[in-house]
Amino acid sequence: MNYHTFSEEILRNFTKNIFVKMGCTDEDAVLASDVLIKSDLRGIDSHGVARLSGYVRLWEKNRINTKPNIRVVYETPTTATVDGDAGLGLVIAPFAMKIAIEKAEKYGSGWVSVRNSNHFGIAGYHALMAVEKNMIGFAMTNASPLVAPTFANERLLGTNPMCYAFPAGKYPPVIVDMATSAAANGKLEIAQRSGKPVPEGWIQDKDGNSSIDPHELKSGGSLLPLGSDRDHGSHKGFGLSATVDILSAVLSGANYGPWVPPFVSFLEPPSDPVGKGIGHFIGAMRVDGFRPVEEFKSHLDKWIERFKSAKTVSPDQKVIIPGEPELEAELFRQTNGIPIIESVYLDLNELAEKFQIEKLNK
Amino acid sequence: MNYHTFSEEILRNFTKNIFVKMGCTDEDAVLASDVLIKSDLRGIDSHGVARLSGYVRLWEKNRINTKPNIRVVYETPTTATVDGDAGLGLVIAPFAMKIAIEKAEKYGSGWVSVRNSNHFGIAGYHALMAVEKNMIGFAMTNASPLVAPTFANERLLGTNPMCYAFPAGKYPPVIVDMATSAAANGKLEIAQRSGKPVPEGWIQDKDGNSSIDPHELKSGGSLLPLGSDRDHGSHKGFGLSATVDILSAVLSGANYGPWVPPFVSFLEPPSDPVGKGIGHFIGAMRVDGFRPVEEFKSHLDKWIERFKSAKTVSPDQKVIIPGEPELEAELFRQTNGIPIIESVYLDLNELAEKFQIEKLNK
Repeated sequence: MNYHTFSEEILRNFTKNIFVKMGCTDEDAVLASDVLIKSDLRGIDSHGVARLSGYVRLWEKNRINTKPNIRVVYETPTTATVDGDAGLGLVIAPFAMKIAIEKAEKYGSGWVSVRNSNHFGIAGYHALMAVEKNMIGFAMTNASPLVAPTFANERLLGTNPMCYAFPAGKYPPVIVDMATSAAANGKLEIAQRSGKPVPEGWIQDKDGNSSIDPHELKSGGSLLPLGSDRDHGSHKGFGLSATVDILSAVLSGANYGPWVPPFVSFLEPPSDPVGKGIGHFIGAMRVDGFRPVEEFKSHLDKWIERFKSAKTVSPDQKVIIPGEPELEAELFRQTNGIPIIESVYLDLNELAEKFQIEKLNK
Repeated sequence: MNYHTFSEEILRNFTKNIFVKMGCTDEDAVLASDVLIKSDLRGIDSHGVARLSGYVRLWEKNRINTKPNIRVVYETPTTATVDGDAGLGLVIAPFAMKIAIEKAEKYGSGWVSVRNSNHFGIAGYHALMAVEKNMIGFAMTNASPLVAPTFANERLLGTNPMCYAFPAGKYPPVIVDMATSAAANGKLEIAQRSGKPVPEGWIQDKDGNSSIDPHELKSGGSLLPLGSDRDHGSHKGFGLSATVDILSAVLSGANYGPWVPPFVSFLEPPSDPVGKGIGHFIGAMRVDGFRPVEEFKSHLDKWIERFKSAKTVSPDQKVIIPGEPELEAELFRQTNGIPIIESVYLDLNELAEKFQIEKLNK
C-alpha cells in the first residue's frame, strides 16, 4: 500500500491547527491532537488522524460543539456524572479522568459516567492518565451500533471497547485495551481496502449467515461479539458489550444500544433519542489503597516475567503481554515517523485546503 | 443421566450440617450453604453441592481454616484489602462485599481486594448482594491454572470469572457472570462424563494442537481463552483473564498465575508461593451516585425491552438477556426441586457417613 511518513510533530501541529480552525480553544486543540497522535504512534491507525475528517464533518453538521461547557451534573465523593455538552470526546474523556483521579487522590477511587459526548479516540489514552499517578485506570465507551448480540440479526451495540491499565515497575504498564467484538471495525476496514476475505466468525450477512466477505457489513450485515458464536462464548462478548453500554450510557443518561448516534455524518442520529450523545465510563483506583505501590509493582513485574517466559506452542512466537505491541510501535514511530496511507493523506490535505492551512508535503 | 431430585431446603440443611461438622460457626455454615445452594438453584450445577466434597478434602488437608479471623489489613475510605485467613471463600467474599457496600453507602463506591481465600462459589451471588441495595455489583476471582494464554503451551491462568450486576425496574437484574475462558470447566466436565467431543476452540492438547477430545485437559492439555485463537480475539480473553488475576491477586497479595493453589486436594500447592491463597476482587457502586435510581431503572427496563424484542436470525430463538436463563432455572427449581446426578448423590452420602449425619434419601 502506498503511504507517506511524517514526524509526530508535523502531524500534531497539523491536527492542532485543524481543531483551532474548528473553533476549539488552543488548550482543547492541543489535547485533542495529543489523543489522536497517540493513537497513530501506538499503531492504532484507525483511531488517529484518519478520523480527523470524520470529526470535521460532524462539526459541519452541528453535531460537535467546539465550545462546550463540560460540567459535573451529579456527584458523591467518589462518583460523578459529566455532561459533555456535545463536545469532542477527545477533550471530554480527559476531563472526566481528571475528576476520577482527584476523587481517587482524596478517597481511594473515583468513577465518572459521561453523557452527551462524541468518540473519545483510544481508550488506552485515558486509562494511562491514571497509570501515571500510580493508579489503576479504567476507560470504556459505547459506540455506533455495528454488532449483533448472540441470536440477533440486528446491529444493537457498538464495538464498545473496555480498557484496564496497570502500572508496573521495571516494565511498561500492562494495558488491556480491546473492542468487545470479535474483531475491531478498523480490522474490517483494512480487509475492505485490501479486498481480502476475513476469518469466519467476524461478521454475519444481512440474513444472519456467517460470512467471510468484509463488505457484507455495508450491505446490512453485522459484526459479531467476541466469541463469534454461541458455542464459543459469543454470549460473553455480548455480556461485556452490554456492561460497557450500561455503565457508559444507562448510568449517565447518554444514548444506548441502537439509539447511539452514528459517527459517520451521512447517517442521521435516531429521531427518538433515549439520552444525550454517546457515553463513556472512566475510573481510577489508587494502588496504595490496597497495598504499597512498590510491592504491587514488583509483583506485577514478576507476573510479566513469568508470562513472557511461558512455554510456547511455537518457538517463534512468545506470549505477548497486553500493551506490549502498542508500546513497541510507539517507540519505533517516535523515531521513524508515522506512516499515513495515500487515501488518508489526500483526505488530510483536502482539510488543509478547506481550512486554508499549510498542506502536508510528501 | 440418572439423577435424584431434592428440595432446596433438604439440600440446604444437609450442606449446612456438613459445614458445622467441619467446624464452621452456625452463621458461617448457613452463609456458605446459601452460596452453594444458590448455584444449584440457578442451574450452575458445577459450583453447587457438587463441590462440597472438594471443600471437605481441602479442609482435611488443612488447606481450609473453618475458624478464620477474616480482617481488613489495609484501607482508604473507598478501598480495602481483606485477608481471609485461609477460610472458605464462600464466607470471605460476602464479608468483602459487605465492606464494599458500607463504603459505597458513605462515599458512593467501595472496592475490596481479597487475599488468602479459597474458591468463592458463583460470582453472581456476591454481586447480587449489591444489587439488592440499588448498587451495581462487581465480583471476580482468580482460580487454579487451567487456561493457556494466547501462543502459550502452559496453563497459567484459571477460568477467572468476572461478574457485573445491574438492578432493573420491572425486570430482573441484568447479570453478566462469565468465565473468561472460551468454555467454563464445568462444561468440559459434562462432556467428559458424556464422552462427547467438544467444539474446536475450547481446548488444546499437550502439544498445543487444537483438540475436540474433552479428556485432553487431563493429559497435559489446556483450556483456551475466550476468543479461542488469535484470529478470533483470544488475546482479548487472555487480557480479561489477566485483568481478573491482577485485580484479585497482584493487588491483594494473593497467589497469581501458575502459583494459584489447585482446588483439587490431590495436587499440592506450589512450594514457592508468591502470595497467600487465592484472590478475589469485589466492588459496589451506588446507582444514585450517578443519577436517580428510578431513572436508571426505567432506562435499563427500556434497554432490556429493546434487546429482547430484537430481530433474530431464527424465529425460534430470541435474544437472551444476561442473567435470564439462571433466573428461569431458579424459579423452576425453587418449585420443582434440584436434580442431583448419581455420582454427586453418592459423593454426598459418603460425606454423610463420614460426618455421621442423616443421609439424603432418594
